Amino acid sequence: MKNYIKADEWKIIEEGFDPLLNKISESIFSLGNGRMGQRANFEESYTGDTLQGNYIAGVYYPDKTRVGWWKNGYPESLAKVINAASWIGLDISVDGETLDLAQAEVSNFRRELNMREGYLLRSFTARLKSGKTLEVTAQRFCSIANDEVAALRYNITPVDFSGTIKLTAFIDGDVINQDSNYGEKFWEQVEGKLSDNEAYLTLRTKKTAFEVCTGTSVSVFKGKEQVHPEMEAVYKEKYLGQTFNMACSPEDTLSICKVAANLSSENHPKDLLMAHCRQVVQAAAALGFEQLLQAQVAAWASKWQESDIVIEGDVAAQQAIRFNIFQLFQTYTGKDDRLNIGPKGFTGEKYGGSTFWDTEAYCLPFYLATAEPAVGRNLLIYRYKQLDKAIENAEKLGFKNGAALYPMVTMNGEECHNEWEITFEEIHRNGAIAFAIYNYIRYTGDEAYMADYGLEVLIAIARFWKQRVNWSNDKHRYVILGVTGPNEYENNVDNNWYTNLMASWCLKYAAEAVYQVKMQLPKQYRQLAGKLDFKEKELADWAVIVEKMYYPQDPKRGIFLQQDGYLDKEPLTVKHLSASDRPLNQKWSWDRILRSCFIKQADVLQGLYFFEEDYDLETIRRNFDYYEPKTVHESSLSPCVHSILAAKLNDEARAYEFYLRTARLDLDDYNNDTEDGLHITSMAGTWMSIVEGFAGMRVREGQLQFNPFLPGKWEAFSFSILFRGARLNIRITEHGIKIKNDSAVPLTVKVRESTRQLAAYGEIKADDSMIWPVM
Amino acid sequence: MKNYIKADEWKIIEEGFDPLLNKISESIFSLGNGRMGQRANFEESYTGDTLQGNYIAGVYYPDKTRVGWWKNGYPESLAKVINAASWIGLDISVDGETLDLAQAEVSNFRRELNMREGYLLRSFTARLKSGKTLEVTAQRFCSIANDEVAALRYNITPVDFSGTIKLTAFIDGDVINQDSNYGEKFWEQVEGKLSDNEAYLTLRTKKTAFEVCTGTSVSVFKGKEQVHPEMEAVYKEKYLGQTFNMACSPEDTLSICKVAANLSSENHPKDLLMAHCRQVVQAAAALGFEQLLQAQVAAWASKWQESDIVIEGDVAAQQAIRFNIFQLFQTYTGKDDRLNIGPKGFTGEKYGGSTFWDTEAYCLPFYLATAEPAVGRNLLIYRYKQLDKAIENAEKLGFKNGAALYPMVTMNGEECHNEWEITFEEIHRNGAIAFAIYNYIRYTGDEAYMADYGLEVLIAIARFWKQRVNWSNDKHRYVILGVTGPNEYENNVDNNWYTNLMASWCLKYAAEAVYQVKMQLPKQYRQLAGKLDFKEKELADWAVIVEKMYYPQDPKRGIFLQQDGYLDKEPLTVKHLSASDRPLNQKWSWDRILRSCFIKQADVLQGLYFFEEDYDLETIRRNFDYYEPKTVHESSLSPCVHSILAAKLNDEARAYEFYLRTARLDLDDYNNDTEDGLHITSMAGTWMSIVEGFAGMRVREGQLQFNPFLPGKWEAFSFSILFRGARLNIRITEHGIKIKNDSAVPLTVKVRESTRQLAAYGEIKADDSMIWPVM
Repeated sequence: MKNYIKADEWKIIEEGFDPLLNKISESIFSLGNGRMGQRANFEESYTGDTLQGNYIAGVYYPDKTRVGWWKNGYPESLAKVINAASWIGLDISVDGETLDLAQAEVSNFRRELNMREGYLLRSFTARLKSGKTLEVTAQRFCSIANDEVAALRYNITPVDFSGTIKLTAFIDGDVINQDSNYGEKFWEQVEGKLSDNEAYLTLRTKKTAFEVCTGTSVSVFKGKEQVHPEMEAVYKEKYLGQTFNMACSPEDTLSICKVAANLSSENHPKDLLMAHCRQVVQAAAALGFEQLLQAQVAAWASKWQESDIVIEGDVAAQQAIRFNIFQLFQTYTGKDDRLNIGPKGFTGEKYGGSTFWDTEAYCLPFYLATAEPAVGRNLLIYRYKQLDKAIENAEKLGFKNGAALYPMVTMNGEECHNEWEITFEEIHRNGAIAFAIYNYIRYTGDEAYMADYGLEVLIAIARFWKQRVNWSNDKHRYVILGVTGPNEYENNVDNNWYTNLMASWCLKYAAEAVYQVKMQLPKQYRQLAGKLDFKEKELADWAVIVEKMYYPQDPKRGIFLQQDGYLDKEPLTVKHLSASDRPLNQKWSWDRILRSCFIKQADVLQGLYFFEEDYDLETIRRNFDYYEPKTVHESSLSPCVHSILAAKLNDEARAYEFYLRTARLDLDDYNNDTEDGLHITSMAGTWMSIVEGFAGMRVREGQLQFNPFLPGKWEAFSFSILFRGARLNIRITEHGIKIKNDSAVPLTVKVRESTRQLAAYGEIKADDSMIWPVM
Repeated sequence: MKNYIKADEWKIIEEGFDPLLNKISESIFSLGNGRMGQRANFEESYTGDTLQGNYIAGVYYPDKTRVGWWKNGYPESLAKVINAASWIGLDISVDGETLDLAQAEVSNFRRELNMREGYLLRSFTARLKSGKTLEVTAQRFCSIANDEVAALRYNITPVDFSGTIKLTAFIDGDVINQDSNYGEKFWEQVEGKLSDNEAYLTLRTKKTAFEVCTGTSVSVFKGKEQVHPEMEAVYKEKYLGQTFNMACSPEDTLSICKVAANLSSENHPKDLLMAHCRQVVQAAAALGFEQLLQAQVAAWASKWQESDIVIEGDVAAQQAIRFNIFQLFQTYTGKDDRLNIGPKGFTGEKYGGSTFWDTEAYCLPFYLATAEPAVGRNLLIYRYKQLDKAIENAEKLGFKNGAALYPMVTMNGEECHNEWEITFEEIHRNGAIAFAIYNYIRYTGDEAYMADYGLEVLIAIARFWKQRVNWSNDKHRYVILGVTGPNEYENNVDNNWYTNLMASWCLKYAAEAVYQVKMQLPKQYRQLAGKLDFKEKELADWAVIVEKMYYPQDPKRGIFLQQDGYLDKEPLTVKHLSASDRPLNQKWSWDRILRSCFIKQADVLQGLYFFEEDYDLETIRRNFDYYEPKTVHESSLSPCVHSILAAKLNDEARAYEFYLRTARLDLDDYNNDTEDGLHITSMAGTWMSIVEGFAGMRVREGQLQFNPFLPGKWEAFSFSILFRGARLNIRITEHGIKIKNDSAVPLTVKVRESTRQLAAYGEIKADDSMIWPVM
């Protein structure tokens, strides 16, 4: 737990330089635009502790698996998003003395992430060992207006000396991944070219042969006036540099602008990669830093209009939720259906930058509500396009006939994880992927998606569950043996309630989808059935399983049991744990965690959250009261579900308490791991706590519903969403709720039990807004 | 499955050279003496496929752990027995052309392991590329008369040429372990000395700093006459060589003898290691190869007298059982209580050469019956001396108050394994270690062991179980959650019947031991109780657990359940598996294995084997009939238990069938893995099948009992054992059983239901032998 970020509604601010916090700040102040991302590494040399990171979306390396004891079915390699050539580099020396904040006396250090406008600003005063003092201001951004472009402006002002500043602007591709399993370097050089003030370096990943061309154009200014110093070329292995000297004197600001582009062979033919990169760099350089920045500011303004949450009366909360929204959009913009949302986004190497079930279970609702439907749709298409690989994956595990098991962790559809209890057994992920189809259609009303894409995925998933269950002669029910549920503090359990529920639901939903498509689009249905060799006899098999599925429960307590045997555990609660026990996964051996009753993240409650309409409030309450005290929330994905359920149960104090656990997770380095990167996917959970929890927003029968309350400490909060062509702003105060329709699309909306017509904006006036007493 | 070893009662014979079989033969023809072991690598250069292996008992390297996903509690490193400096090396070239069987035309190749006399003989004719032909005969042994000594004699006879043979006798310590986790070399050089015909090389292991001095003395003969060629010294890193040239002509046999010693700093002060090595080498060289060999033959004759099994009418079976006995004694002689029995002995690197529960569960009975009690006792003392480490190990997992969990795999008492489901959960090993104390005292009658050593171990183990159980409010019984039983094809199960049984038995046995020692040796008891802070209140806790332990069972079928939920599985038998499914662990993914009903090795049946007196025959039969068809025996430790139980159930055909599964496991390379090394510990299981299965030998109430039958294909079998000072030979024919007492110790013996007096040998005549009809 740290507390060094200054509160501000729109900015993340660090004041003063503490090398011990540097890696944390490198994560927090990360920039990205969905296509590339850059940790807040310094432009100039830095010999202190740092995690260098520049990541290009979709470019990965299959690192050879490291495993203690091999199990049949493990993948040979694990795809990892990899650290790419650094475009920000600027070596600076003053009369032969290198500028390095690890060596200099640093004052007035300030880092500022301007979330409204989408840039990073850093300024400091450095007194070198020689006594020479200079002031630096560095500003940079990754453009969301043109997501192959990034730019920086680096201003140096001598304070107390005249002399010669030697600069080397460089692209350095001789980089490593700190989490490389065997210390390998992942890149090899294809080509490097320097001309005038431009540099172009193309590297190729080993094995996967992705190519990335990084290009830069450097311009130099003295005051406002552009100058053209002679540049000396520096060629090294996977490195291009341009060195020049500038005479300088006090108050004489030297300004270096570097406009950069990162182009990947995923988006350009390899033989034209460098040529295209040159076009992009030159076009951007022609605009110049200022114009590029203006486009950036405008693009972010538009994003904020659709997605902002305003919290009144709590600056820290305001800062935190904007930080979460900002980072989510830096990570994924939804333009490319080959991309997805890694748990660390572009802010670190951990978890390999790959796709987990986090996307479907936690991130999708955020993108559905804050972006055009195409964005959420692309998240679904990503899985659709990987269906063949999911079928192959299932075949490796012994499944047949087109059954699909989506991987636990993946980059390109292949499994990237090698812990049997997770890789082979945490199969509920298949359910989340089916649920995402349901959730997407429910929110967007895009029924056509089902016939075009959804059904094919659902049939493959249903076929998996059909084969994965078995009949228990003992229970006279279908059972699912040997799984790991969402609560990863149980492994290889039988009849995880959540998994059984998801399996059964998938079978039911797939069958409904089959009937629906068959009825509405018989020709398309026949084509698909032919392609998949789908026989309607399969539906009968599914129906029997749905009817006869076993669900562990405790009738005495009126609760569902997380899994068979859960009641054999020693009945403790989190209150029995001492501080020295926490977090359990660092303090207890794995067997002790497994046999304890403690729950890592919502499991039964996750199921009740997904399917709340199927359960009465008292059932939800009993389960919440039973499981909540046993949950340690050692996954950052957990508290949001508890928050939303607490809100549903009108326990507003606890809804707010659970929200607080992740609201500032990274800003306050709550888990001492922010230096590894930000918890991108759990940021969506925080958004859910506010919108689905505090505002109680749901989509039911094609309509938006709200069931809001105002957390005690806040004066008001409001948020913007998109819903079926409408743009809404919802504001909740102590007096009630106000919904503004900023679009021409009229809607019917339900607030608590009352249904209201919300006219197109032309027809609704501010004082027509609906206000209900909340309490 | 291979079938290239020639049948012979006393010898293992390979005829003809097949490079594809070479690594298998290197394992099968391995030599050892309990202190060192050497794979059957060639003395001369060999550029073909080989696994070089020379191992020194007790000398290991803690190789840095390799793991995919770290769990709290995993060991940082895994101790491995390591490949040491090779003492056998002889480079041979004829007029500049190297003798290398991978390059030469080889004929008359023959390898012979003489088990009766304990040596390896190899002969071949090699035609070099130049056309020159030579005959070679190489003989070598690791002395069990002096277990620091080994010797070889290498005869070269030119067939069709005269010329110069250049020889380099060397010690090469620049060796690797093929299973090194990160490709590291484990040795560094301390000192190397060459003088005259002697060479001494001292190496030190990294990290552990064990030192081993390898010394050799070379003597050269032309025909019978010793010659003294001038030797040129060759010094390299971790290598010493002595090169000399010999003129030779047809029929002129050149003979090189190399007497070697391997001395370890475990047995000698480091500063005197080389000096002691010189003494040992020079004393052995003074005796010469022939005398050393005579001592070897005599020592093996004595071992065979105490331990031989003679099978009449089945040469393959005779060869196999002698091979097993031979390899067991090559691995462990019981002289040093710091040593133990690695699953591969000194025949390969796999499994790190460390100690598993195999020792207590499978090997101890063999050594109890075939060697002096001190041998079995030393196996127990090994664990006694590691008790502190077992307590530390338990502390790492959260246990307190002197509770001990012995490691799953160990060299020096520290855990050497890193799979949570095994390392942390296969805790039944603690039960086997307690059972070994019971078994040792039962066989030997050495009651004093309990007070001196046994009780301290038992209390620590009982304390572990006390803390490892928990009360189930649901079952109103004590349960043991999250374990892996002997059947490793189930992981993290609840209430494994075998584990619950062992836990309860340990508590009961420890309590009995407390009462017994307290009664018989009150002073010693008080001292121990003081040392361990043992309060008798603990006994009451143990008693409650014993009384209220939960045992899963199926009353309908009248069987014990392997674990909770076993009846939920799809009820299949091995007959449902096709050849393409086997072995499951290579063909199925781990989750599929886990949720199937298939059993890797005896589990419930292992418990019924250990505690057969507690169950009536019908109970054993019902469980056998239920579990046997589900058992795939993919552990070589499994069939012996099935064999013994089948014999008990009078199912002689199946008892023999199970015996056959492991009898020639390595000789026929049944599992295609003999090249990695021999299955040393399962060899003891084969011995058990004959002695406890076919002969039905038991010790009950201090008396030997026999319940024999003769496997259909055999004419007769007999075996020698030691029992409480008596030396017995038991012979079983189709007519009955004959027991000869070759000692002065009279015994009471029970055959089937009849109790008989067996007088000292002086008083028993052959025609007084007891003969019972068997069928």
